[in-house]
Amino acid sequence: MYPVSLQELIDEFNKLPGIGHKSAVRLAFHVMNMPEEKVQKFVNAINRAKTSVHLCSKCQNLTDKDVCDICASTKRDTNVICVMESPKDVTALEKTREYNGLYHVLHGAISPMDGIGPDDIKIKELISRLTPEVTEVIMATNPTVEGEATAMYIARLLKPMGITVTRIAHGIPVGGDIEYADEVTLTRAIEGRREI
Amino acid sequence: MYPVSLQELIDEFNKLPGIGHKSAVRLAFHVMNMPEEKVQKFVNAINRAKTSVHLCSKCQNLTDKDVCDICASTKRDTNVICVMESPKDVTALEKTREYNGLYHVLHGAISPMDGIGPDDIKIKELISRLTPEVTEVIMATNPTVEGEATAMYIARLLKPMGITVTRIAHGIPVGGDIEYADEVTLTRAIEGRREI
Repeated sequence: MYPVSLQELIDEFNKLPGIGHKSAVRLAFHVMNMPEEKVQKFVNAINRAKTSVHLCSKCQNLTDKDVCDICASTKRDTNVICVMESPKDVTALEKTREYNGLYHVLHGAISPMDGIGPDDIKIKELISRLTPEVTEVIMATNPTVEGEATAMYIARLLKPMGITVTRIAHGIPVGGDIEYADEVTLTRAIEGRREI
Repeated sequence: MYPVSLQELIDEFNKLPGIGHKSAVRLAFHVMNMPEEKVQKFVNAINRAKTSVHLCSKCQNLTDKDVCDICASTKRDTNVICVMESPKDVTALEKTREYNGLYHVLHGAISPMDGIGPDDIKIKELISRLTPEVTEVIMATNPTVEGEATAMYIARLLKPMGITVTRIAHGIPVGGDIEYADEVTLTRAIEGRREI
């Protein structure tokens, strides 16, 4: 019904995650109505991000430098490494401004169901970073079956090396309602209780 | 927090309609993880649609030819023109396969509140198409204040030219529930009642 090249653009938008047919049509029409220079700015942003962004050679987070800003900083505590599943998780923790150590991004979690084993995520790269300077590794993978399994797997690898391995606390979210908390979270909250 | 070029890509996605910050991050990460050739296919689709799609010189619908397929077809009834606000409306009506006349796309509706007057939409182009061959013009603008005003404005222009101007029927949608119909729709449904 639409001109071929417009239909192709709709199909391309439709392939993106979370973009259904109606959204794809709306986005394609929006692009058609955008001034030429804005479209080029959009296209250039895609190309530039695609060519310049790669993994930090140390922590495997996304960066456009060889070593990312956090790894290169002289103000960070190099004794602690926080292990996370994705770059988005790093951004979330950085926003709190409460953590001053280093990071390591695994880019996924061990998931035999999806055919993802320990060699498919950045565990080797973590091991090779563990100089005697590193005293603590915080496992901040997601509180999912896969995240827990990954945390356990790495903890077992690291403990014989004399490194303290810790796990982030699970419990009722701040502002959350105990009445509506699921049983697992509530159990964890009780287990993790602390004296006040 | 993200590398500059990645942040710029997130910002570009964020500018698109219906794409909030979280969706923009997800889309940018998806693009980062796409194979290079798929990204180029996406970028090429944008560029190709942008350069090849323009308005049909007759009906003002989107096309990649000089005259669109519908206007060029010898199988369409050239006595009737259905006037619609947008190319999406044409696609919706074409899907029914019930209408065999021509179209005219206004690209908007008269809306003094938004500073859109009769000269800002494709009314001149409609008038110039009205050869003696055209016997009926169907006003299929949206049943909104702007759509109604536009239909009335064009009807008043066309009637002195001896052309039958009709308006699409408003009423209860098929499968709709009378109990939940709004008052205006219900009033229109009663007004438009027909003998069975």
